[in-house]
Amino acid sequence: MRTPPSDHGSSRPAPDVVVVGAGLIGLVTAWRAAQRGLRVSVVAPEPHAAASGVAAGMLTPATEAAFGEEALMRFGIHSRDRYPGFIAELESESGRDAGYRAEGTLQVAFDTDDLARLTELMELQGRLGVKAQRLTGRECRRLEPMLAPSVRGGVLAPEDHSVDPRRLMAALRAAALHRGAELVTDRVTEVVVSGGAALGVRLSGGDRLDAGQVVLAAGTWTPGIGGVPADVLPPLRPVKGQLLRLRTPEGEEPIVTRTVRGLVRGTPVYLVPRADGEIVLGATQEETGYDTRLTVGGVWEVLRDARELVPGVSELEIAETCVGLRPGSPDNEPLLGPTRIPGLHLAVGHFRHGVLLTPATGDAMAEALTGAPLPDHARRFAATRDLGVPA
Amino acid sequence: MRTPPSDHGSSRPAPDVVVVGAGLIGLVTAWRAAQRGLRVSVVAPEPHAAASGVAAGMLTPATEAAFGEEALMRFGIHSRDRYPGFIAELESESGRDAGYRAEGTLQVAFDTDDLARLTELMELQGRLGVKAQRLTGRECRRLEPMLAPSVRGGVLAPEDHSVDPRRLMAALRAAALHRGAELVTDRVTEVVVSGGAALGVRLSGGDRLDAGQVVLAAGTWTPGIGGVPADVLPPLRPVKGQLLRLRTPEGEEPIVTRTVRGLVRGTPVYLVPRADGEIVLGATQEETGYDTRLTVGGVWEVLRDARELVPGVSELEIAETCVGLRPGSPDNEPLLGPTRIPGLHLAVGHFRHGVLLTPATGDAMAEALTGAPLPDHARRFAATRDLGVPA
Repeated sequence: MRTPPSDHGSSRPAPDVVVVGAGLIGLVTAWRAAQRGLRVSVVAPEPHAAASGVAAGMLTPATEAAFGEEALMRFGIHSRDRYPGFIAELESESGRDAGYRAEGTLQVAFDTDDLARLTELMELQGRLGVKAQRLTGRECRRLEPMLAPSVRGGVLAPEDHSVDPRRLMAALRAAALHRGAELVTDRVTEVVVSGGAALGVRLSGGDRLDAGQVVLAAGTWTPGIGGVPADVLPPLRPVKGQLLRLRTPEGEEPIVTRTVRGLVRGTPVYLVPRADGEIVLGATQEETGYDTRLTVGGVWEVLRDARELVPGVSELEIAETCVGLRPGSPDNEPLLGPTRIPGLHLAVGHFRHGVLLTPATGDAMAEALTGAPLPDHARRFAATRDLGVPA
Repeated sequence: MRTPPSDHGSSRPAPDVVVVGAGLIGLVTAWRAAQRGLRVSVVAPEPHAAASGVAAGMLTPATEAAFGEEALMRFGIHSRDRYPGFIAELESESGRDAGYRAEGTLQVAFDTDDLARLTELMELQGRLGVKAQRLTGRECRRLEPMLAPSVRGGVLAPEDHSVDPRRLMAALRAAALHRGAELVTDRVTEVVVSGGAALGVRLSGGDRLDAGQVVLAAGTWTPGIGGVPADVLPPLRPVKGQLLRLRTPEGEEPIVTRTVRGLVRGTPVYLVPRADGEIVLGATQEETGYDTRLTVGGVWEVLRDARELVPGVSELEIAETCVGLRPGSPDNEPLLGPTRIPGLHLAVGHFRHGVLLTPATGDAMAEALTGAPLPDHARRFAATRDLGVPA
């Protein structure tokens, strides 16, 4: 960390790239750009407060699959398949464990209606070429004995894994620093645009940080950055998630051994285990604006469904409560790469898929920042696509 | 605060009284003793971690009334009636607001069985001479419009009020200091008994703090203090309570205007409002030993019943979660005053009634520490009573 340079000269040359935001998307962009030899500065007011640190870290495009989202699911599957190589490279460069676990994901249905929805989902997964194995309730309980006797059936997605987003962020931070990126703890108030091109950013104290290219990667907080025309950055709506982190008592077996996603009377709930016995339990999806309050109703909903699915969860300790805001774009898909303003890029709108899409986003942004077109997989998510939003 | 004196002399004379524990009971004992001209030291390892700081602060002997506990209820009613004068004196000596609120308490029943239990309770209250007014469901909702439509009826106890135990502790601390008491932040490992009499206490570092009299007032942690024969201090069992502190949004009316206690399918739940918009929501009663974990099951139970009783509570923010251990004696009644060991007193076992019994306990301990008999109201709770516990 260093004091940002003033307008009146700095001891360091201006960076090639300023990345605004130090969540997973900002950090992976910084790391990948630095690997390409670019001088990168990452600016964030509270680098450890990113919504990435709240996320559960499921890498489950197969169980996330929803109708009308096939293209996004394909991008998710591509990014998921990038994970093993991505993690190996990251752990090697950072010298840190990134918290990746490869035990697959079990999706289960609580009642007959939930099972019908799971059957539809499996058909969609089949069309997408996703590996998924249908299980009876009994087979589900054989895999996860703590599941409620009422669980009707499920689907095992043997290639859908999980990662600990907090460890992943720490590893990305270390890897980016290792590659020479710098982290600046400050708030970007605006993008400096002059003569139609982005020249850098303005920091909270009024100082300017010049750079050849600017990447906006501040998740749901991105629209608060000034200087960006409305037709360049579409509206991002915050989708609030409330979740809990539970602690397994010393010496006891974890209550689930792999990610378990459930549909309980139509409401999704999940339990994601970590190596240290932590279980992440979530999550609400609430469109209540920039509201980060932990609420009675939100916590109750998550606890109610988790207890139905895995009754033994009642005995576990609540170690932490968390609230995060997912950044939803108008079409729920990310916005990647250059905008119509030369030098200004977006890496936003990852909604519920930020952790999953981290490797693929890093690849795409590295191409964009070195002047190459977006990779095929990412092209559909170009920041310049027509979203039907009036300018 | 000061460094405790060593065995080899201190710049200060040994206190007349050492009080072990800095919760409400320890502090009120210290204040009252100091008012009588005694030099008092209060010793606690974490003076702000007392279970008193978790308590909701209901002064509701009438709604707490239970069969077989009439004598304790009479002591509670006596202590409740002492509150206005006690608060006036305390606020005057401490110069602090002690957080007393005199709006009465509404007890409501959720279903027909709950209403039957409430009717029995009212009969008991009648026998105890407690003011209580029977209300229909409609009358309850007129008083508290946010109550669920399903509330069947209730009882208004117009003289059962509430106090904020955190403010009360701060005021007692200030008043005790004002009267010359000193607070020592340390852990007492044992009572020093020699020649059959208590001579002081031993502190964590091994130093001795001599005193003419010792009062054990460390709640559920008291049995951890060494040097006390088993027949002097009966077993105290921790009864865990999990509760939540909710926040009313800026500018909104609080969801309840007075203490509301409910029976929801046989389970008690309460909402206690504070002047600053905080609502205390509780509480579980769990006999799980020295376990201070916040659990899924505990939080879920409290939220479930609160939502049934006052559905609008769902919208409120959870500002804080708390766990405390109530000290339950073998007969659920407090143990006050001298033991068979000269110089050693108890002020423990207040169970669910510590806040309520604070004024009366202060009175009783001041008498005991000045060599007088316990006041009539307190005599039944003498520490030397036969509890049928084998020595």
